[in-house]
Amino acid sequence: MAERYAARSAGMTASEVRALFAVAARPEVISLAGGMPFVQALPSEEVLRVVTEVLTDRAAVALQYGGGSGNEGLKVRLAALMAEQGIEVEPADILITVGAQQALDLVGKLFIDPGDEIAVEAPSYVGALSAFSVYEPRYLQIPLDDDGLSVDAFEAALASGARPKFLYVCPNFHNPAGVTLSMDRRRRLIEVCRAAGVPIIEDDPYGMLRFEGDPLPSLRSLHPEGVIYLGTLSKVFCPGIRVGWTVAPAGTTAQLVLLKEASDLCSSNLNMLVAEGWLADPDRWTGTLADFVDVYRRRRDACLAALERHFPVGTTWTRPGGGFYVWVTIPGADTKAMLPEAVARGVAYVPGTAFFPDGSGRDRLRLAFCYPPEDAIEEGVRRLGELLAELPAYSPAGSRAT
Amino acid sequence: MAERYAARSAGMTASEVRALFAVAARPEVISLAGGMPFVQALPSEEVLRVVTEVLTDRAAVALQYGGGSGNEGLKVRLAALMAEQGIEVEPADILITVGAQQALDLVGKLFIDPGDEIAVEAPSYVGALSAFSVYEPRYLQIPLDDDGLSVDAFEAALASGARPKFLYVCPNFHNPAGVTLSMDRRRRLIEVCRAAGVPIIEDDPYGMLRFEGDPLPSLRSLHPEGVIYLGTLSKVFCPGIRVGWTVAPAGTTAQLVLLKEASDLCSSNLNMLVAEGWLADPDRWTGTLADFVDVYRRRRDACLAALERHFPVGTTWTRPGGGFYVWVTIPGADTKAMLPEAVARGVAYVPGTAFFPDGSGRDRLRLAFCYPPEDAIEEGVRRLGELLAELPAYSPAGSRAT
Repeated sequence: MAERYAARSAGMTASEVRALFAVAARPEVISLAGGMPFVQALPSEEVLRVVTEVLTDRAAVALQYGGGSGNEGLKVRLAALMAEQGIEVEPADILITVGAQQALDLVGKLFIDPGDEIAVEAPSYVGALSAFSVYEPRYLQIPLDDDGLSVDAFEAALASGARPKFLYVCPNFHNPAGVTLSMDRRRRLIEVCRAAGVPIIEDDPYGMLRFEGDPLPSLRSLHPEGVIYLGTLSKVFCPGIRVGWTVAPAGTTAQLVLLKEASDLCSSNLNMLVAEGWLADPDRWTGTLADFVDVYRRRRDACLAALERHFPVGTTWTRPGGGFYVWVTIPGADTKAMLPEAVARGVAYVPGTAFFPDGSGRDRLRLAFCYPPEDAIEEGVRRLGELLAELPAYSPAGSRAT
Repeated sequence: MAERYAARSAGMTASEVRALFAVAARPEVISLAGGMPFVQALPSEEVLRVVTEVLTDRAAVALQYGGGSGNEGLKVRLAALMAEQGIEVEPADILITVGAQQALDLVGKLFIDPGDEIAVEAPSYVGALSAFSVYEPRYLQIPLDDDGLSVDAFEAALASGARPKFLYVCPNFHNPAGVTLSMDRRRRLIEVCRAAGVPIIEDDPYGMLRFEGDPLPSLRSLHPEGVIYLGTLSKVFCPGIRVGWTVAPAGTTAQLVLLKEASDLCSSNLNMLVAEGWLADPDRWTGTLADFVDVYRRRRDACLAALERHFPVGTTWTRPGGGFYVWVTIPGADTKAMLPEAVARGVAYVPGTAFFPDGSGRDRLRLAFCYPPEDAIEEGVRRLGELLAELPAYSPAGSRAT
């Protein structure tokens, strides 16, 4: 059948992240690779209580098809959740998706014709690149630093004639970079995008997982008519129910709903009712969210301390104020080539090249501190530091050679 | 943002079926429109028992991300289910999807470049047309009759130079036509497709809902390397968990998995474990399946009897041996134009034009007998027959006029 595949499938191969899921499953390997939330921090008996209520009181709805835009009760809960974060929306502005990943696919479907230019941060979430690439765009890569996306670089690209269909950004606790877009840059980015008429896709899986300081306003709240906001319960409740959502201008939501229906008719009513039930108890919801934040803060601290302790002089890394990831720069390294040896020594990470459309980022890697306990993080970083110390750029032999 | 949408979104509008979901929800309207399974026939306390086991014994898996191709235990159960139906597959040949609808989307994504020709039955499942149309194909419509797809017509089209990327067929208890592809035509269709190298997409949501007679072998079992088979639990368990699957040649499965991951990362582990648990008890599984078949057989009988009783001479309809649908031909009618009046009189159906890419089928309509009880089916068909009797083609006034 392969000779009949569409052009988009040419060169479609398993991502590095995907290949690593198998590796990370081996018990002797400490995985700092996948961004799996630590769902063991959830009281599963409370989840069971919610499911029991749903199947006792509303089985005929839970087991049936639902509407394409999602369960109305859940949309009301999500609108309230958005309001707490300064985003004023009507439930009708919300489309429930299968995690935020489906929202990325729908955005790609809605906007991208083959050859269209789209702007992304470099690095960007690998799953967003996978979703968009199916629609065969050209990528305009905009660099980022400790304050997030470089608005100067984006403005310069527009001044040079770039006309991207949209700009995709992850402003809070970026995946993979761990950085957060500063308030000043948020304001400037909105100005630039408003002037150029470039829609912003604001992906915010980690915004509620803030370890310190005050939240910054979302891009959506600063520019409602020009931003499609993507949210998800995967990191603040659990990914096993696959509940994400979009907030978009009304006409755009209507188009996204049609594409959603063409993609899978509707999301799982059972899962949507469980999500609605989970959010219905504010103490339980905020309590477990606080538990998650505590767990991830301690793991972030363990990861940063271990990096200080074990990584050679000359390597640098970001200091995330929330989320799941630390982004490490190792001048002179080829992190993809190094990965098999790292795994052989019992530690896994994601090589930097996975996060750049053009395959750059060879001297970068992403560490996810979300899943392993602190002592495993410490040991994993130690193993990796030991390996780095043997690289020519960092070993005494290497020093002598230069 | 609309000026930046991709070409595929031009002319994308809400389908007739979709618009009808709202109408059908009004209590005074008897809906013979939507193909909603009668999930009330399921023992919901048994579903709760399965969910309770899952969340008691395997919560950390149920609430976590899963692999892109789906839960391994469920794949083993589905392979066993396929074997009972004469389809020999390894679990690794199966990809779990969000209902069969997602499989249709993935098939469209894998095969269709804009402008490619694909062959479909006329009429075809409206959701398949929605899924494929996103990828901008040209449609080659192949008529069907009481024995299913006209293989002669398909062969003639190929002889005239048609080179479709694939042929999409629903061989058992067709949606919307209710007909089943005969054994002779199955053999001939395989010969024709094998000779021309045309892959077959075999959509089989209703095959297990057989009211009488013996099952016919699936196209997949007759031609494993040339068929992608699509299955779903939506009609034989429940749609609320959104579990479907594909069976495809190994290389094609690998490509479909990559597209699935780009679309939504993975299906819901909670839902997949519930499906696995449901299939794990053969008595429960076969018992509830038999209950479904009994319910739908009685409703089919009620629908056919009511049609005999209430529809005017000159109208004709199919006699489905299973599934959800009767396909009615009303010479001289415009069923789309007639729908508002039908709804005003308290009965809903789906107009025939929804099921033809070229908008033909104005004198056809689909009746779904799956959801309302027998007395409601009788009353709904009576209301519709009364309306038809007033059409010029069928009323005494109309007879006089011709």
